[in-house]
Amino acid sequence: MSEQRTEVATLGEFGLIDHLTKNFEIQNASTIVTVGDDAAVIDHFGKQTVITTDLLLEGVHFDLMYTPLKHLGYKSVVVNLSDVYAMNAIPTQITVSIGISNRFSVEALNEFYEGIHFACEKYGVDLIGGDTSASHKGFVISVTAIGEVAPDNFVKRSTAEKGDLICVSGDLGGAFLGLTLLEREKKIWLEHPNVQPDLEDEKYITGRLLKPEARKDIIAFFEQQQIKPTAMMDISDGLSSELLHICKQSNTGCRIYEEKLPIAEDSRKAAFKFGLDPTACALSGGEDYELLFTLKQEAYDKLVLNEEISVIGYITDAEEGTKIITKGGNTFDITAQGWTAFKA
Amino acid sequence: MSEQRTEVATLGEFGLIDHLTKNFEIQNASTIVTVGDDAAVIDHFGKQTVITTDLLLEGVHFDLMYTPLKHLGYKSVVVNLSDVYAMNAIPTQITVSIGISNRFSVEALNEFYEGIHFACEKYGVDLIGGDTSASHKGFVISVTAIGEVAPDNFVKRSTAEKGDLICVSGDLGGAFLGLTLLEREKKIWLEHPNVQPDLEDEKYITGRLLKPEARKDIIAFFEQQQIKPTAMMDISDGLSSELLHICKQSNTGCRIYEEKLPIAEDSRKAAFKFGLDPTACALSGGEDYELLFTLKQEAYDKLVLNEEISVIGYITDAEEGTKIITKGGNTFDITAQGWTAFKA
Repeated sequence: MSEQRTEVATLGEFGLIDHLTKNFEIQNASTIVTVGDDAAVIDHFGKQTVITTDLLLEGVHFDLMYTPLKHLGYKSVVVNLSDVYAMNAIPTQITVSIGISNRFSVEALNEFYEGIHFACEKYGVDLIGGDTSASHKGFVISVTAIGEVAPDNFVKRSTAEKGDLICVSGDLGGAFLGLTLLEREKKIWLEHPNVQPDLEDEKYITGRLLKPEARKDIIAFFEQQQIKPTAMMDISDGLSSELLHICKQSNTGCRIYEEKLPIAEDSRKAAFKFGLDPTACALSGGEDYELLFTLKQEAYDKLVLNEEISVIGYITDAEEGTKIITKGGNTFDITAQGWTAFKA
Repeated sequence: MSEQRTEVATLGEFGLIDHLTKNFEIQNASTIVTVGDDAAVIDHFGKQTVITTDLLLEGVHFDLMYTPLKHLGYKSVVVNLSDVYAMNAIPTQITVSIGISNRFSVEALNEFYEGIHFACEKYGVDLIGGDTSASHKGFVISVTAIGEVAPDNFVKRSTAEKGDLICVSGDLGGAFLGLTLLEREKKIWLEHPNVQPDLEDEKYITGRLLKPEARKDIIAFFEQQQIKPTAMMDISDGLSSELLHICKQSNTGCRIYEEKLPIAEDSRKAAFKFGLDPTACALSGGEDYELLFTLKQEAYDKLVLNEEISVIGYITDAEEGTKIITKGGNTFDITAQGWTAFKA
């Protein structure tokens, strides 16, 4: 964090936007009019447009005590891009609006926009608009992401069918364990301000929480292999919750296997350290921003080419319910609060 | 306001969204996927897509002491649609995200969404997504509006040219006078809670503030008369401020005439009552959501067909500055805080 402090008021609203967005370069031919007019203009040249939006509020969605502003900017973009990828689409533009109190300096906002810039560059999206406003209390962030998809190539949640394979990308539960760790360290620090936490060994789980990535690579793999999932969504509220959404909206049931759930070794170690069941963390921990999708069984041969994808079960008739088979061979109902059932 | 109070927690996040959006019908063929998936999908079938977003924060942008929630819902949509029209485009979809504290009941949110619904019906736009979230303090509203425009038929701020006529729709200053009145009545009421304000005679100016309209009719008139403005923006921060934006971005100057500024009789009366100069209110009062645009002089014959349009001046070379000629024949520089110069 820079030591200099420039008051936002010295720049004025328009000066502030100009200052914060001056390093952003346009990367997409679809961006016709960008920041600085009443609205932005996009031409997706025959493709369909995908839109998603998220509101992030200080104290509810993030805690500035342990969230670096640069990471927060990055994450604010990534969580929205994740929703675009979850439609089998490619994100192309974002708008970012912020509400800030006078406790934020220009230097602090520079850090936040550096994170946004970094995400824009990495994912190839253009910042095309937004709004900056005073806020009486707390930092308010609203991001809208726009993407494109070939006509009718989008994938909804409601179109899974009996017999489809259920797959997830990456690994699960890490972000929740990162949150558990940081909340614990925060509590310790508040009681003993002289104790500096050493989080070096916990980089994986804190990184999963503070700087998540959206699965651009999985959508690129689908394109390359000509795979189209039958249903898809991103995992922001936990696997159980999302799987129940897909089954409810598709009017199906499901069977998943505990032993197939992808859990990173670092997450497993952290769970045991905190006395938590890694399976429960994988099922109910949110914010991993992995993709959950269903596929026709014929796609299996292509799937195995990608180590980042795990097949965790299959879709059934609705009458068969939504179940998980444990390592011990027991069958449980999947619940959105799967937590309780699996607590170690 | 209904007397019943249902806690938001009884519905849960997804139940709440379902409840609040259940009466919204899709009106546009371009809306392919709507509320209930990771993102919405739009197909503008060869047209270009226009996007704008606004963040509205309680205590900064609105005061719930004198703002009915239904009007607030309506206005939150309208101010964004106004930005779409200001691009010479037709709004087609919106997303609405809200952050609410537990002081809001389901009944209160029903009122807010009734206003949104009313605006959607009136302007023919579809609610296609959004987000509801807890907020520790204050009501947070984020609206994104999406519209469409025939390829390259959009109108920017930066393309006014010397000799163009400067026009505004409707009349100016009313919303600011409505705000002045309501702030004054609020102060009186806080000191003397038994005095009920009678605002019956002030319906015009309070209506301009609390329930503004976007100028859909002007864009329809342009289409019908095959007029394309050379530059355009909506008047949210006051005429002076917006005119300076157009001149700066177009690298021009301007001359406008005080006697040509459109001011409603009700606004004029209210201004005198409050000891304010009506011209200052028209120049510097914000939130009228009228359109400010420039046109080639050849369009003048068509313009006079529309009583809702006033020609207030013309664009000059940048070197001639940005000036207003008063009724008395004096020439002043236009400033974004024109207020001081014209105070009665």
